Amino acid sequence: MEMKLPGQEGFEASSAPRNIPSGELDSNPDPGTGPSPDGPSDTESKELGVPKDPLLFIQLNELLGWPQALEWRETGRWVLFEEKLEVAAGRWSAPHVPTLALPSLQKLRSLLAEGLVLLDCPAQSLLELVEQVTRVESLSPELRGQLQALLLQRPQHYNQTTGTRPCWGSTHPRKASDNEEAPLREQCQNPLRQKLPPGAEAGTVLAGELGFLAQPLGAFVRLRNPVVLGSLTEVSLPSRFFCLLLGPCMLGKGYHEMGRAAAVLLSDPQFQWSVRRASNLHDLLAALDAFLEEVTVLPPGRWDPTARIPPPKCLPSQHKRLPSQQREIRGPAVPRLTSAEDRHRHGPHAHSPELQRTGSDFLDALHLQCFSAVLYIYLATVTNAITFGGLLGDATDGAQGVLESFLGTAVAGAAFCLMAGQPLTILSSTGPVLVFERLLFSFSRDYSLDYLPFRLWVGIWVATFCLVLVATEASVLVRYFTRFTEEGFCALISLIFIYDAVGKMLNLTHTYPIQKPGSSAYGCLCQYPGPGGNESQWIRTRPKDRDDIVSMPTLPGRGWLVSPFGANPWWWSVAAALPALLLSILIFMDQQITAVILNRMEYRLQKGAGFHLDLFCVAVLMLLTSALGLPWYVSATVISLAHMDSLRRESRACAPGERPNFLGIREQRLTGLVVFILTGASIFLAPVLKFIPMPVLYGIFLYMGVAALSSIQFTNRVKLLLMPAKHQPDLLLLRHVPLTRVHLFTAIQLACLGLLWIIKSTPAAIIFPLMLLGLVGVRKALERVFSPQELLWLDELMPEEERSIPEKGLEPEHSFSGSDSEDSELMYQPKAPEINISVN
Amino acid sequence: MEMKLPGQEGFEASSAPRNIPSGELDSNPDPGTGPSPDGPSDTESKELGVPKDPLLFIQLNELLGWPQALEWRETGRWVLFEEKLEVAAGRWSAPHVPTLALPSLQKLRSLLAEGLVLLDCPAQSLLELVEQVTRVESLSPELRGQLQALLLQRPQHYNQTTGTRPCWGSTHPRKASDNEEAPLREQCQNPLRQKLPPGAEAGTVLAGELGFLAQPLGAFVRLRNPVVLGSLTEVSLPSRFFCLLLGPCMLGKGYHEMGRAAAVLLSDPQFQWSVRRASNLHDLLAALDAFLEEVTVLPPGRWDPTARIPPPKCLPSQHKRLPSQQREIRGPAVPRLTSAEDRHRHGPHAHSPELQRTGSDFLDALHLQCFSAVLYIYLATVTNAITFGGLLGDATDGAQGVLESFLGTAVAGAAFCLMAGQPLTILSSTGPVLVFERLLFSFSRDYSLDYLPFRLWVGIWVATFCLVLVATEASVLVRYFTRFTEEGFCALISLIFIYDAVGKMLNLTHTYPIQKPGSSAYGCLCQYPGPGGNESQWIRTRPKDRDDIVSMPTLPGRGWLVSPFGANPWWWSVAAALPALLLSILIFMDQQITAVILNRMEYRLQKGAGFHLDLFCVAVLMLLTSALGLPWYVSATVISLAHMDSLRRESRACAPGERPNFLGIREQRLTGLVVFILTGASIFLAPVLKFIPMPVLYGIFLYMGVAALSSIQFTNRVKLLLMPAKHQPDLLLLRHVPLTRVHLFTAIQLACLGLLWIIKSTPAAIIFPLMLLGLVGVRKALERVFSPQELLWLDELMPEEERSIPEKGLEPEHSFSGSDSEDSELMYQPKAPEINISVN
Repeated sequence: MEMKLPGQEGFEASSAPRNIPSGELDSNPDPGTGPSPDGPSDTESKELGVPKDPLLFIQLNELLGWPQALEWRETGRWVLFEEKLEVAAGRWSAPHVPTLALPSLQKLRSLLAEGLVLLDCPAQSLLELVEQVTRVESLSPELRGQLQALLLQRPQHYNQTTGTRPCWGSTHPRKASDNEEAPLREQCQNPLRQKLPPGAEAGTVLAGELGFLAQPLGAFVRLRNPVVLGSLTEVSLPSRFFCLLLGPCMLGKGYHEMGRAAAVLLSDPQFQWSVRRASNLHDLLAALDAFLEEVTVLPPGRWDPTARIPPPKCLPSQHKRLPSQQREIRGPAVPRLTSAEDRHRHGPHAHSPELQRTGSDFLDALHLQCFSAVLYIYLATVTNAITFGGLLGDATDGAQGVLESFLGTAVAGAAFCLMAGQPLTILSSTGPVLVFERLLFSFSRDYSLDYLPFRLWVGIWVATFCLVLVATEASVLVRYFTRFTEEGFCALISLIFIYDAVGKMLNLTHTYPIQKPGSSAYGCLCQYPGPGGNESQWIRTRPKDRDDIVSMPTLPGRGWLVSPFGANPWWWSVAAALPALLLSILIFMDQQITAVILNRMEYRLQKGAGFHLDLFCVAVLMLLTSALGLPWYVSATVISLAHMDSLRRESRACAPGERPNFLGIREQRLTGLVVFILTGASIFLAPVLKFIPMPVLYGIFLYMGVAALSSIQFTNRVKLLLMPAKHQPDLLLLRHVPLTRVHLFTAIQLACLGLLWIIKSTPAAIIFPLMLLGLVGVRKALERVFSPQELLWLDELMPEEERSIPEKGLEPEHSFSGSDSEDSELMYQPKAPEINISVN
Repeated sequence: MEMKLPGQEGFEASSAPRNIPSGELDSNPDPGTGPSPDGPSDTESKELGVPKDPLLFIQLNELLGWPQALEWRETGRWVLFEEKLEVAAGRWSAPHVPTLALPSLQKLRSLLAEGLVLLDCPAQSLLELVEQVTRVESLSPELRGQLQALLLQRPQHYNQTTGTRPCWGSTHPRKASDNEEAPLREQCQNPLRQKLPPGAEAGTVLAGELGFLAQPLGAFVRLRNPVVLGSLTEVSLPSRFFCLLLGPCMLGKGYHEMGRAAAVLLSDPQFQWSVRRASNLHDLLAALDAFLEEVTVLPPGRWDPTARIPPPKCLPSQHKRLPSQQREIRGPAVPRLTSAEDRHRHGPHAHSPELQRTGSDFLDALHLQCFSAVLYIYLATVTNAITFGGLLGDATDGAQGVLESFLGTAVAGAAFCLMAGQPLTILSSTGPVLVFERLLFSFSRDYSLDYLPFRLWVGIWVATFCLVLVATEASVLVRYFTRFTEEGFCALISLIFIYDAVGKMLNLTHTYPIQKPGSSAYGCLCQYPGPGGNESQWIRTRPKDRDDIVSMPTLPGRGWLVSPFGANPWWWSVAAALPALLLSILIFMDQQITAVILNRMEYRLQKGAGFHLDLFCVAVLMLLTSALGLPWYVSATVISLAHMDSLRRESRACAPGERPNFLGIREQRLTGLVVFILTGASIFLAPVLKFIPMPVLYGIFLYMGVAALSSIQFTNRVKLLLMPAKHQPDLLLLRHVPLTRVHLFTAIQLACLGLLWIIKSTPAAIIFPLMLLGLVGVRKALERVFSPQELLWLDELMPEEERSIPEKGLEPEHSFSGSDSEDSELMYQPKAPEINISVN
C-alpha cells in the first residue's frame, strides 16, 4: 500500500493555479494509473513523495419509466456536496450536505457483498464494460441481451448549456447509427467541465427497478485505465468507477436511495482513498464499514430528514481520519511561509534571491481585480478624508480642512506606499490621534499658544521617540496589548465619538432654536437681498458658526511651511516633549496593532512584514506633516483590512458548494499608490463637497462610534450582564467560562472604562494615552484573579502565559469531558477584535 | 398490545392548561401503571379511548475519576433535545439536536443483547433496584458489594438554584447517615420541575469505566411502578427507566457515547412507545432496530460531528412514524375547531349554547398579557393616526388633521369593537383608501366642488353598495383575489408612497432652496422681533406652506355635521355614485382580505368569524364618518395581525429547546376598546405633536413604502430577473418551477404594474380601483399560460383550480421523484403575503 493522500486534498492543492482548455484531456485519455504530481503548488506533496489522487465527479443515472418507457436519467451529482435535479423546475438544486437513510447503506452493502466486484477492469469502452458487467450466471442469454441494450442506451442529462428546459426526452431521439462511444457536444461544453481541475475522473452510479429481473443485480467496477465512456456521464471525463444497482420492483424509493448511498460513499475522500487501493471484495466492504464507523447519526424524531443542510463554512479536517502512519508524513496543514527568513531558507536558488530584479511589486498588480480594489479603497479613503478632515478642520477652527486632508492623505499615503515594508497598509487620520489632536488644540488655546508651531514641535519629538522605538526593536511589546486593552480603548474612543456627535447636534439646537408659536421670538423673516440691496450687509450678519465646510474652511497669512516658533516662547519647544511622549504611545499602538493584524498568518503573505521599517516611515511622515501643518497619519486598520480583502487571490476551479480556496493576497505597491494619486486629484471635487453640512459629518461619526462599539466582544458581554441566562446566545466563551467569571471580567472592564472617561473629562485629559499603559497593567494583574484557561476565552494570552498553557491537560474540564470538540471550538474563537482601537 | 400514542404527543396535549404545585407528585409516588387521561385538552384522545404516555425526562450520570476518586456526575439531560453540561462554564448548554456516532449505537445494542433486561421490575426503592440489577452471575460477592455501594452513592448534579458555581464536589460531602431515599431539597426546587408537565417520569442512564470489572455490564430496567429513586435524578420525578452501562477501561469515550446513545434512544417518542410495551429482550432490540431504520446519516467528510445543530423550527411529524393501525385511530393532527357550526355540533349541552350568558368577550381579557397588548397596539394605532392624519390633513389642505384623526379613529374603532363579529380587528385609515381620497380631493378641486358635501354623498353611496354586497353574500368573491392581485396592488400603493415622499421632499428644496455663496440671493437675515416690534408683521410674512402639523388648522366656519349639499348642484349627489362604486371595490378588498387573513385556520379561533357583519359595520361607520367629515376607516391588516399576535395563548410547560405550543388567541373585545379609548384621549398630546415636522412624516411614508415592497414575493422574483442562477437563493418555488416560467410570470406582473402606474398618472387616475378587477381578469387568463402546479407555487389557486388539483399525480414530477419531500415543502410555502394590500 502506497502512502498517498485522499483525493480531496489533492484537489485543494492542485486546483489552484491553472485552467487548461477543455479539449486537453480528450487528447490524452490515458493518464496512467494515477496522474503524476504536476501542479506547481504540489511542492509539499512532491517533497514528501506522495502523489495525489485525482478529484472524482460522481453522477447518479436512474432507470425510470418501468415498464412502458424505460430510460436513464441523471438525477443527482456529487463532487464535494450533493446536487439534486429539480425535475419540475429543470435546474440543479443548490449544493447541500448529503443525508442518507441508514437502511439504504446497509442494503447497498449486502447487494455489493453478493454482487460482482471487478477491480482493475481492463475495459476500454462502454461496450466492453457492459459485456463484462453482464457476464453473470444468473442471467439467461436473452435477459443478458436485453440488459446490455438497456445499459448502452444513451442517458438523458439535464444540460444547462442547451437551454432552460431539460433536454431529455423528445429533443434527443435515440439513433442506433450514432457512434455511441464519441462524447456528445453537450458533454464537452458543460460548464462544469471548466470548473473541475485537470485530471479529474468520473464515477457513475446506475440504479433502478427492472421488472424482468428475478433477483437484484449489483456490480462495482474500478477501471484499470480511466476512459471516457461515451455519453454515460454528463461531463466528458474519463471514468474510473462504475456501479450498477438493478433489481425487481420493490416498495418505496429503494434503488434511488441505494444509488445515492453509493454516490455519497464514492464522494467521501477516505472511502475513495481506500477503494482506489482495494484489491478484493473484502477491502471494498472494509472501506464501507470504515465509512459507517464515522458517520454522524441524527435521531428520527428530532430532525426532519427532508431538510437540506447548506454546505458548512469549513469542512472538518480530513487529517484526523487518516491512518496514523499517513498522518506523520502529512506534516502541518498550513505551510508556514510568512516570514522572509523562511523564504530564504527554502528558496530554490543557491545565490541570494534579493539580488534578482523581480518587479513583482508592480507587475503583480496586472489583474482586473486590482482595478476594482482601487475603486473600492479610493471611495473609502476619500470618505475618511472628508469626515476626518471636516472634523479636524472644525477642531482647529479653520486652520485645516477637507482639501488639506485630501492633499495630506495623498502625499503621506503615496510616500508610505513607495517606501514601506507592508505597502498594503492604507495611511489615514485615525480616531485616537484625532481625539488627541483636539485635546492638544484646546490645551494650546488654554495657554494662549500659537498652535501650529507648538504642534510642529510635538511632531518633531514624536518622530524622535518613534525612531528610538525602532532602534530598540520595541515592536515586540505589541504582544502585551491584548484584546482587553484594545477593547477598552476602542470603547473609550467610540463613546467620545458618540458623545461629541450628540453634543454638537444639541449645540445646533441652541444656536438655531426651534421657534414656538407662543413665544415672543416666533417667526423669522428670511429676505433675499433685492437687486439694489447692499450685499455686504448680509455677509456681515452671517452667523459666526459655519454650517458648511467650504474651504477656500492654505489660509491667508499662512505659508507652506509652519514657522518653527511663531509667537511661542522658546522653551515650549522643549515642553512639547511631554505631550509628544503621550502621542508616541498612541501612534505606536495604532500603527503596530494594525501591522500585526495585517501580517497574520492566515493571510499567507509571501513578501514578509516590516514592522520597524513601517514605524520608521510613520516617524518620517510625522515630521513632514507637522512641518507642513497637515494632519497626522497612521495606518488605518479597517481600510487596510478592506484593501487586503479586496486583493484576495482565490482558486477558480471549485466544486459546487465548496467555498473558493484562498491562495494569498496580490501583494504589490500599485493599488495603494493609485488610490492616493486619485485622492490627491480629488481636490477638484471641492465645488461639490461644500454642500455637505456639518450635521452629516456628525451623523457619520455617530454611526462610526456605534458601529465600533457593537463590533467588540466587550459589548456582547455587557449585554450578557442584563440578560437572563435563558435568552443568552450560545457564545463559545459561555461554554467554557462560568457566567459569574464572565460578569466579573466585564465589570472590571467597565470600571476601567469609567475611570478613563473621568480622566478624559478632567483638565488632565491630555494624559489619556498614558492610561493605556495602565490598562496593560490592569490586565497583568488579572492573571491573579483569572486562570489562564479563562483568560484564553475572555481575552488572549500575554507572552508569559502562553508558555504556561501546555499544563492545561491537568484541568478537570479536559480530563473529564470531550476535549476533542473543545479543540475544534477554539478554532472558531476570533483571536483579535474585528474592528480595532482605530475607529476609522 | 394497547393502542397508545407516543409520549411526545401526550405531552403536547396535556401540558397546556395547568401547573400543579411542586409537592403534589411526591405525596402520590405511585400513579399506577400509566397516568389517567385527566387533562381537559385530552378530550380528543379520551373520545378515541387512547390514554397518552407520560413525558420522559432522561439524564445521564457518568462515573468519573477512576481509579482514585470515583463519583457520579450528571453530564447530560434530554427531554426533546440534548443539553450538555459545560463543565468549565458550569452551566447547561443551549438545547440542541443530539448527534450520535453509529458505532456507539451498535455497541449499545450488543451490550444490551448480552446484558440484563428487567421489564416490569417491582423494585420500590433505589436499594431494591440496585440489588436486582447486581444479581448477575459474573460478579463475585465481593465485587457485587463494591458495585452496590457505588451505585448507591449520591450523584453530583449541577443545580442551577443553588448558585452559579456547580454544586458537586466539596459543597456536598456524602453523609452515610442520610436517608438516601428521600429526595433532596435541590431536587424539589429544581426550576425544571415547574416546566415539566404533571405526570412526567424520569429515565436515568448510568455509564462509565470501572477498572475492577472483567467484562462489560449492561442492564436495562423498566420499573413496574414509577418511583422516586432518592437523589438519583436531578429533578424529583418518579423513575420509570434505568439503564446501566459499566465496563473495564477502554479507549476513547466509549461509555460516555454509549450512555448518550441510550439516552437519545429513550428520548425518541417511537422507541419510548415501543419500550413501554416491550415484553422481552427481543422487543427491546426490535425497537432499537426500528430506531436505526429511521436515523438520518451524515457522511463524515462533509459534516463536522462536533457542530451543534440548534432545534429546528418545526419538528418532523410523528404521525408518519406510527404503525398504520395506530394512525387510523389517531385522526387528523389538528382539530378543526374554527367555525361556530362545529362548536354547536360538538357542544356538551343539549340546549342552545347561544342562550347562555358567558361574558367571555370581556372576562377573557383578565390576563396581564392583555395589558401589554393594549400598550403595544395603542402605540401602533397612535403612530398610524399621526401619519395618516398628518398626510390626510395635508391632502385636504387643512380640512382634517391629526386631532380629527385621533377622534375619528377612537369613535369608529370603539364602535367597531363593540359591534363587530371579529373584534380583534383594528380599524384604521389605510393606504389604498388614503390614495383614493387624495384623488377624490383633486378631482373635486378640478371641478370647483365643495369637497366635504361631495365626500358625504360618496360615503352614502359606498354604504349603500356595501349593504348590497352584504345582502348578496359577496364575501365569497374574496377568494378570487389571489397573491397575484394582492401583490400587484401592494406594489402600486408602495410605489405611490415612495414617489410622493420623494417628490414632496424635492418640493421642499424648491420652496427653501440651498443658498450658494456665489449666487445673488446668498445670505438670509433671520431677525427676532424685538420687544417693541410689531408681531403681526411677522405672521403675515410667514410662508404659506406649513412645515409643522399644528392643529388648532374643528375649523371656524365648519359645524360638527357636514351639510348635505353645500355649494354643489344637487345632481352631484347622484354623480357621486360613480366614484363611490370605485371606492366600494377598494373598501371591499381591504376589509375582506384582512378578515380572511385574521380568520385563518392556524389561529384556531374559537368564536367564529363574521365576514358580513363586519362589512356591515364598516358600511355604517362609513356613513357616520362621512357625515362628521372624519377620515374613512377600514380594517388594517398589519395592526390587526399584530393585535392578534400579542394575544397568543401559549403553553408554559415546555421542554428545553422546544418552542411553546400555540393554544389559541385571547379573543375578547376589551383590548381593542381600551386601545381606542386611549387613542381618543390622545388629543391631549397635541402640544407635543405640533413639533413633528412634515419631512418626518414623509420619511415614515417612504419607509412604509419600501418595507411593504420588500416584504412581497414579487420583489424577490424581480431580483431573480437580475441575478445569475448561481447566486440565486434556494427559494422553494425555484425548486419546482422552471426559471423561465418564473421570469414570465414576473414580467406579466411588471407589465400590469406599469399599466396601473400609467393610468394612475393620467386624468383617469380615479378609476384605479377598477383596475383591480382587471388584475383578477389577467390572473384568470394566466390559467391558459401556466399549469395549476406552477400557479400553486407562484401564486395561490382560484376556486375552480383547486378542484382540478387532485390530478397532480399524473405530472412527471410526481411520478418520478420524491413526492414525499415535496409534500412537506409545500407546508413551508407561505399561503399569502405577510403584508397585504393595505400598506399600513
